[in-house]
Amino acid sequence: MKLFDEGHFIRQLSIDSVIFGYQELELKVLVSKVDLPHSVWTLPGGFIKQEESIDLAAQRILEERTGLTDIYLEQYRVFGEPTRINHEIFEGFNNMKAEWLSKGILDESSFQWLSKRFVSIGYYALVDINKVSPRRGMLDASVGWYNVKELPKMIMDHNEMVDAALEALRQNLDQKLIGFNLLPETFTMREVQELYEAVYDKPFARNNFQKKILDLNVLERLEKKFTGAQNKAPYLYRFRKE
Amino acid sequence: MKLFDEGHFIRQLSIDSVIFGYQELELKVLVSKVDLPHSVWTLPGGFIKQEESIDLAAQRILEERTGLTDIYLEQYRVFGEPTRINHEIFEGFNNMKAEWLSKGILDESSFQWLSKRFVSIGYYALVDINKVSPRRGMLDASVGWYNVKELPKMIMDHNEMVDAALEALRQNLDQKLIGFNLLPETFTMREVQELYEAVYDKPFARNNFQKKILDLNVLERLEKKFTGAQNKAPYLYRFRKE
Repeated sequence: MKLFDEGHFIRQLSIDSVIFGYQELELKVLVSKVDLPHSVWTLPGGFIKQEESIDLAAQRILEERTGLTDIYLEQYRVFGEPTRINHEIFEGFNNMKAEWLSKGILDESSFQWLSKRFVSIGYYALVDINKVSPRRGMLDASVGWYNVKELPKMIMDHNEMVDAALEALRQNLDQKLIGFNLLPETFTMREVQELYEAVYDKPFARNNFQKKILDLNVLERLEKKFTGAQNKAPYLYRFRKE
Repeated sequence: MKLFDEGHFIRQLSIDSVIFGYQELELKVLVSKVDLPHSVWTLPGGFIKQEESIDLAAQRILEERTGLTDIYLEQYRVFGEPTRINHEIFEGFNNMKAEWLSKGILDESSFQWLSKRFVSIGYYALVDINKVSPRRGMLDASVGWYNVKELPKMIMDHNEMVDAALEALRQNLDQKLIGFNLLPETFTMREVQELYEAVYDKPFARNNFQKKILDLNVLERLEKKFTGAQNKAPYLYRFRKE
């Protein structure tokens, strides 16, 4: 089976995605591990079909890895240094070549295809981590969530991609009100603040923060249900969808 | 001569540049005219050499068109619809084929190369229009400055590229203090305001505007020279370069 060739995909052009999730007060990123057989870590990525828009390609790749179809996705930068040749992966591929050829995981022309320099379009995605069951890519040994501050050393410029995506996320968090994609359907004000603190990696003053968020005028406060227990539970909010 | 081939350039990947200049109170964009023999208009663009970073490719393409080497340049978005096949240009090429082949302007394989779908990385550039002597690209009949509000209908999605670049420019004007690249070395406060009004296509209140700009703390006010004539000339400023 010919996996990669110019008939199906655009050559030397890839998509790499920084998939952000938020859990237990930590901003996390989905990272794949590939065993060659020594382990290397990579961002989830893929290629663009000849008849496919780049945005749909990014959606498809994310759906393959997360199972989610309706993901908040943002194209944030292209990475195009001429040194973006994946020597580490490619040498590893050579170790695995016999095994992968025999299993039909990759064919000879795909090895050649992958050995070129690639320009990569960087996307970042925001997902509700509770809804995701991470799925391995074709070559992955495993895939898992890592705290953005404790990422493994990844191949090529993938760590730099995360840094740039985080920078773009911070710039857009208020302006585009995208942070709510990281939260479940309903949340407390404190949970919003904790999310912001995780993204910006710094504390916010509670009163100012609450005022700032409410002034954005995008949250809807839910009625409290009568609980009997002195009703001290905090208010729940949800993101107003219009 | 083989002009375009995979040995030299990355296939199906291009760069298109929105070159902004500012003159006579108008924000302007550099546009090429290609005669096929009917005229079509395009943004200046080009391809990425195999051994070249995308940023350097963009710099090279801009230098070819403007003669300037030190240009403010920003990568702002990738345009990747699968319909980005340049039917109009390509059909026009066929009209010109015999002539261009005989003149050695293009060869047969370059025609094939150009007929593919291209993903295009959009850059915008800010230049001091007085320093630019626009130069024609290989296929251009002419090249000239157009008011951003009165652009000709260009090929494919090039008008949309300008809209997106202008949007990005507006978002970055304050934040990155990049507008000063559009002005000559020294300028009056009124000229700064006129520039902002041209970019945002709306008026600003004089006092507020002046305060806002001075508060950015990036301008240096020059000493007035004694002129004798009551010294009523407005203050000149320049951008502080550190």
